Amino acid sequence: MLELYHHSTSVCAAKVRLVLHEKQLEWKGNFVDILKGEQFDPAYLKLNPKAVVPTLIHDGKVIRESTVIDEYLDEAFPARPLRPDDAFGRAQMRLWTKLVDESLHICCAAITFALFHRHTVLKMAPAEIETYLQNTRDPVFRQRKRVWVHKGLEAPDVKDAIKFHDKLLTDMETALGESRWLCGDQYTLADVSLTPYVNRLEMLGLAAMWRDRPRVTEWFARIKARTNFQPAVIEWIPPQMASVMKANGSAQWPFFEQSLKAA
Amino acid sequence: MLELYHHSTSVCAAKVRLVLHEKQLEWKGNFVDILKGEQFDPAYLKLNPKAVVPTLIHDGKVIRESTVIDEYLDEAFPARPLRPDDAFGRAQMRLWTKLVDESLHICCAAITFALFHRHTVLKMAPAEIETYLQNTRDPVFRQRKRVWVHKGLEAPDVKDAIKFHDKLLTDMETALGESRWLCGDQYTLADVSLTPYVNRLEMLGLAAMWRDRPRVTEWFARIKARTNFQPAVIEWIPPQMASVMKANGSAQWPFFEQSLKAA
Repeated sequence: MLELYHHSTSVCAAKVRLVLHEKQLEWKGNFVDILKGEQFDPAYLKLNPKAVVPTLIHDGKVIRESTVIDEYLDEAFPARPLRPDDAFGRAQMRLWTKLVDESLHICCAAITFALFHRHTVLKMAPAEIETYLQNTRDPVFRQRKRVWVHKGLEAPDVKDAIKFHDKLLTDMETALGESRWLCGDQYTLADVSLTPYVNRLEMLGLAAMWRDRPRVTEWFARIKARTNFQPAVIEWIPPQMASVMKANGSAQWPFFEQSLKAA
Repeated sequence: MLELYHHSTSVCAAKVRLVLHEKQLEWKGNFVDILKGEQFDPAYLKLNPKAVVPTLIHDGKVIRESTVIDEYLDEAFPARPLRPDDAFGRAQMRLWTKLVDESLHICCAAITFALFHRHTVLKMAPAEIETYLQNTRDPVFRQRKRVWVHKGLEAPDVKDAIKFHDKLLTDMETALGESRWLCGDQYTLADVSLTPYVNRLEMLGLAAMWRDRPRVTEWFARIKARTNFQPAVIEWIPPQMASVMKANGSAQWPFFEQSLKAA
């Protein structure tokens, strides 16, 4: 049996749901409300000491980290493969999934915090804000979060995060000039990994970031047309949250446009 | 043909050399002197836009990122396998290699800078130091490096880096209580990935960090007894550098001991 501990809007949880739906696997979901702090529940911490979602349980075996989970699912359930069948193709695919984990994820967090999460956090009492920040275990990430919460778009690393997204979209445009999907003509875990992040930009009203990138535009249209997109990504996002995210983000588009021009 | 662009003391280059020697593959080395800035050479930047080592060229195909290269080599040359043969085992292995890339690497950099590299950098003229720092492309990493150079062990994230290493050694001790190697009874890329980092601690005179961890002690003795260790790791380290590293590091052992007690 496959059980997934996950959250609705977590980009990493969406990466795993995309694979589960794409491979048409049966799974049971256990919702962990990270906005309410349920990831710090002692029972969950036993499964996931880093207190993050998702965690997969497969016949009692615990697997953590969305990128590791996705490769695991593709190996454990080989039907409908999501990895190129040659070693070089898989290396290319892993460069994308690694870039997502090591660079894109934190940049996405910077933008999402500056445009959206900070407004929720700033409604808390000062002591609550401090507790919220102290719950972030990695001290460097905690300090960055603190600046995003208090300074929003004025946090110095937010501009770097915008530039990073722009460079990423350029690299995607280049890769998609060579093939239909990011790693050749097969939909792979590279496409899966990028999906929730490009979707996050769209949710934040920032789709204009790829208006001059026809191949990314077509790629994302193909991504949205796949049968896994609605059940894995869209159906989990509360409509009220989606509407606030879009409104907040769209209002700041001029800041993004200016940052991109200045870059 | 296999060609490796690499540097002598780079932990990431050592990870790839360990695999090349373990699998007894023929390879040609192209030395990139990162201490002299050769990674910024335009010809090298075409192969590796991030300006880091290593880069592997296999029959004209370019493969970057040591962890990706190591999995590639194991897939392209299946003899003497370095990955568990089941999906769950490979997932466990990837949790280790991912931890090395995403957390251990920067903590190793913090300690190595604070104990060793900063002394080389501080001998430069102020303008040269600035150029050196500006060459670090990632702005967050650049800022951390700046503090390591100027504050050394007093940089706040160095204490976190020491604690991280201590926690890692605890986790290794636990894993090695269950099996001979980090992922079962087979020497895998998990062991390969950790080797240069544990060796770095030893080179910095910090082997006392595992004096109360008998399983890590035995694991590292087994690692050093393997035929790949000398040619892949030790023979590349200039003896003069090794002796300065050990002297600098050993002199600061009381600082480490105190940080660990305080934790």
